[in-house]
Amino acid sequence: MTRWALLLEYDGTGTVGWQRQQDGVTLQALLEAAASRLAGGTAVPSVVAGRTDAGVHAAGQVALIELPDRHGAAQVRDALNFHLKPHPLVVLRAAPAPEGWSPRFSAIHRVYRYLILNRRARPALERRVWHVPQPLDEAAMAEAATHLLGRHDFTSFRAAACQAKSPLRTLDRLPVTREGEIIAVQAEARSFLHHQVRNMVGTLKLVGEGRWPPGRVADVLAARDRAASGPTAPPEGLTLLAVRYAQDPFTPAAEDRARAPACPR
Amino acid sequence: MTRWALLLEYDGTGTVGWQRQQDGVTLQALLEAAASRLAGGTAVPSVVAGRTDAGVHAAGQVALIELPDRHGAAQVRDALNFHLKPHPLVVLRAAPAPEGWSPRFSAIHRVYRYLILNRRARPALERRVWHVPQPLDEAAMAEAATHLLGRHDFTSFRAAACQAKSPLRTLDRLPVTREGEIIAVQAEARSFLHHQVRNMVGTLKLVGEGRWPPGRVADVLAARDRAASGPTAPPEGLTLLAVRYAQDPFTPAAEDRARAPACPR
Repeated sequence: MTRWALLLEYDGTGTVGWQRQQDGVTLQALLEAAASRLAGGTAVPSVVAGRTDAGVHAAGQVALIELPDRHGAAQVRDALNFHLKPHPLVVLRAAPAPEGWSPRFSAIHRVYRYLILNRRARPALERRVWHVPQPLDEAAMAEAATHLLGRHDFTSFRAAACQAKSPLRTLDRLPVTREGEIIAVQAEARSFLHHQVRNMVGTLKLVGEGRWPPGRVADVLAARDRAASGPTAPPEGLTLLAVRYAQDPFTPAAEDRARAPACPR
Repeated sequence: MTRWALLLEYDGTGTVGWQRQQDGVTLQALLEAAASRLAGGTAVPSVVAGRTDAGVHAAGQVALIELPDRHGAAQVRDALNFHLKPHPLVVLRAAPAPEGWSPRFSAIHRVYRYLILNRRARPALERRVWHVPQPLDEAAMAEAATHLLGRHDFTSFRAAACQAKSPLRTLDRLPVTREGEIIAVQAEARSFLHHQVRNMVGTLKLVGEGRWPPGRVADVLAARDRAASGPTAPPEGLTLLAVRYAQDPFTPAAEDRARAPACPR
């Protein structure tokens, strides 16, 4: 058997999220069904770096599956993509996983991006955004964001359902930038609490509207009370951009080692 | 009556194009139906800068409609958007049209962008692209594109159904650039023949694949024969980005004059 690291892209619109559950389409179920086709019909469980919520997207999700030693990396990628059709979930790369490596527990850095479309008209082209029609002050939002940087108890930004043992997290970066009608909030940390990014964005939006001064975000953080922060921003604006590892399975060298010579790219 | 210039954004996926026809959803019909709701149910014809084909998108299409003198610019925009729901067609701006101005005949410059997703895996996030799995050489494509610049007889790149009187057009710019997996071809001219951009892109792709040398594009142009050029690139990668006018109805000054004071932005 070979343990395969997979780099995934997906549009979460209309899904009920990554994880297997009773109702609705899960991305995990789609991936595992495709993988099962490559394993002669036996069940293939998967592990993933970030169990994204319903409606959340990914440009660089990382998963692990185990398959019989039958295929090269390019074949695994192409065969999974064949069986994943026509769902908006694709394998960008496949590479043999390093010994002892876990997509979830070996991750040392996660990068999420939240996009706000800040204009009167609703979106017709770019749909993976939160549409906020009233003008937002991105400079005030950027100032507010600086209060969240560093190691803190993020209880105020944590979902009630969060299963993490500790509410302590270290937020490495939280830049807020505008390009025309689009405001981007990028959130970078080793790991996040459940709904943390969306709760931070929901709070920054209140600052952007001028309803809260930027400094209030420091008080919200200090309160350690979910009721102190703003509402949860909707899932459609959130994308998991990248997950980083000390031992990256997707380095070009690793892919070269894995490429089956008989499979043209 | 007031003549309104409208700046439009739309996703053409699944539509049969701009122009009214017998079958299928046309963007023109959607706009005119919404406008009719603002005119007490009477028919409101529209004129447009570029009659985009089935499946083609727009980030800056320009249209003209005439409405009773009842509304300010912000009201026209918001009321049209209300009636256009839930279709992926929105009015970004509305402004009184200058005297004698036509969205089609007053246009002095049109900008189209064609996007190619050049990677093995099909697109899951960015769907408004042409998916080309085999590697393309964008430098060769850029070199080939230079042969098309300037004033030429573009018969080789013209659809059989093209209704233009003359095949002469002046192509001002045709840069080919790559950003990661995305190759962008931007085409700029006063006007284009029917399918001209998609036929040019279909030809540049043959060069990118290495099947044709860049210089062959000069021969194709000189042949003045549609059979000499490459196949028509599919519509999903094409977006009308912008239309420019000597008298631009959407200058900020024009919008300020038009804004009804009672309508908050």
